[in-house]
Amino acid sequence: MGKLFVVGIGPGGLEHMTIKALDTIKESDIIVGYTKYLEFLQPLIKDKETVSTGMMGEEERCRKALELAKDKVVAVISTGDAGIYGMAGLILELREDEEVEIIPGVTASSSAGSVLGAPLMHDNCNISLSDLMTPYEDIKKRVRLAAEGDFIISLYNPKSKKRITYLREAIGTIKEFRPASTPVAVVKNALREGQSINIYTIENFDDSEVDMFSIVIVGNSKSFMKDGFFITPRGYKIDK
Amino acid sequence: MGKLFVVGIGPGGLEHMTIKALDTIKESDIIVGYTKYLEFLQPLIKDKETVSTGMMGEEERCRKALELAKDKVVAVISTGDAGIYGMAGLILELREDEEVEIIPGVTASSSAGSVLGAPLMHDNCNISLSDLMTPYEDIKKRVRLAAEGDFIISLYNPKSKKRITYLREAIGTIKEFRPASTPVAVVKNALREGQSINIYTIENFDDSEVDMFSIVIVGNSKSFMKDGFFITPRGYKIDK
Ligand SMILES: C[S@@+](CC[C@H](N)C(=O)[O-])C[C@H]1O[C@@H](n2cnc3c(N)ncnc32)[C@H](O)[C@@H]1O
Ligand SMILES: C[S@@+](CC[C@H](N)C(=O)[O-])C[C@H]1O[C@@H](n2cnc3c(N)ncnc32)[C@H](O)[C@@H]1O
Repeated sequence: MGKLFVVGIGPGGLEHMTIKALDTIKESDIIVGYTKYLEFLQPLIKDKETVSTGMMGEEERCRKALELAKDKVVAVISTGDAGIYGMAGLILELREDEEVEIIPGVTASSSAGSVLGAPLMHDNCNISLSDLMTPYEDIKKRVRLAAEGDFIISLYNPKSKKRITYLREAIGTIKEFRPASTPVAVVKNALREGQSINIYTIENFDDSEVDMFSIVIVGNSKSFMKDGFFITPRGYKIDK
Repeated sequence: MGKLFVVGIGPGGLEHMTIKALDTIKESDIIVGYTKYLEFLQPLIKDKETVSTGMMGEEERCRKALELAKDKVVAVISTGDAGIYGMAGLILELREDEEVEIIPGVTASSSAGSVLGAPLMHDNCNISLSDLMTPYEDIKKRVRLAAEGDFIISLYNPKSKKRITYLREAIGTIKEFRPASTPVAVVKNALREGQSINIYTIENFDDSEVDMFSIVIVGNSKSFMKDGFFITPRGYKIDK
């Protein structure tokens, strides 16, 4: 009897993977994932069968993994948390009677948050700027409502070669609702090789360092910088 | 020279802690945290000095940890991610010149999401219903805007003995914007001893199983149940 695990491997640096994720990968017969993510795992999976899926579409990859899981132990990997813009949803949508278990991981907003300080300490939201499966009108509406609600906003998939203006437009919208000094951070490759951090105010934000390996975190109206740390206070009544 | 680590230990079950969190705790001289959270770590910290803080206020606890960190290696622990309604913010606000590093962890919405299936697959937000440090008017406003924006909503601190109506009011507001069949899940003690799951529709939601060890996840307008799994599709164009 096979089984399919959908595993969130965290940001990429192996030490930020959970023990359960590590053990699951070690105990799986076959590892399925994007070539780049399999590279992160190289030390763990040298001797394993892998299905790297640079070539396949996502749906094809999920079907393949489910098929293999009929009689093998298979791990499908996502970075971060497999349940946040990862593979967990599509696997469960396509699942028929295969046994499936989801192993959570540290998502990119938490990873990036930790290297910045404590930007996510109050109510916060994750928004993907990818319009591959969501109409841009819906994305814009969400950004505006999140801005109005004073949520800390983590922007996933902030920029690709085809979408270069969405991020600038999103920041422009949020700026209408926040002080000019609100911190905005770009974290590229958080907690994995190639990590870089750039910090701006919402007034002087510049998207030149943003790519598809980056996440952008916009503070709420109370966020501030202190000694290089990006901090959002937990509430409005803390004495300083 | 001492150092202070602020460590997110994940949901509580030790296997869902990251390797870095585990190593940090093992290598620390002193562990600071709520008594209940120290219990989760018992197998790891039997021989260590601990400062359990049932009695102290949060600010006092953070000051104590910073003081100890002047010449010892100290780990302050939070459940989930230390940067989401955890200890990271207050530590950094109170920090003077101590060396501080934040170690991220799997937050409760991801843990609960993984045991439910894949509820968080699209744009989502975390809202705390605790009014200890946030005026209730602000909380209500955020809930309404998140509802209008069709965010998947994870409600942290959903209910305490003093606040018994906020959750019902929040669900009532969200219901104005979503189909009656929208799944709402209550996950108590996700991925630790005592885990329990209750699934409702937004129409027949009942808060009797909710306590302060629970998180409530409300789907967006496209979320659905399939074979017991709570799934939100990633986008609006997937062929089924
Ligand atoms: C398809 S989403 C996958 C998200 C992933 N499942 C998670 O929970 O983090 C890809 C986007 O996640 C963000 N991302 C993932 N890992 C990251 C990292 N280590 N540093 C910065 N951003 C990251 C980037 O915004 C990237 O465009
Ligand atoms: C002060 S907040 C701490 C959140 C934590 N730092 C995190 O990132 O998960 C406490 C609230 O988190 C939620 N929570 C934390 N761990 C949980 C678990 N294992 N299962 C369900 N809810 C949890 C509950 O809503 C609880 O009232």
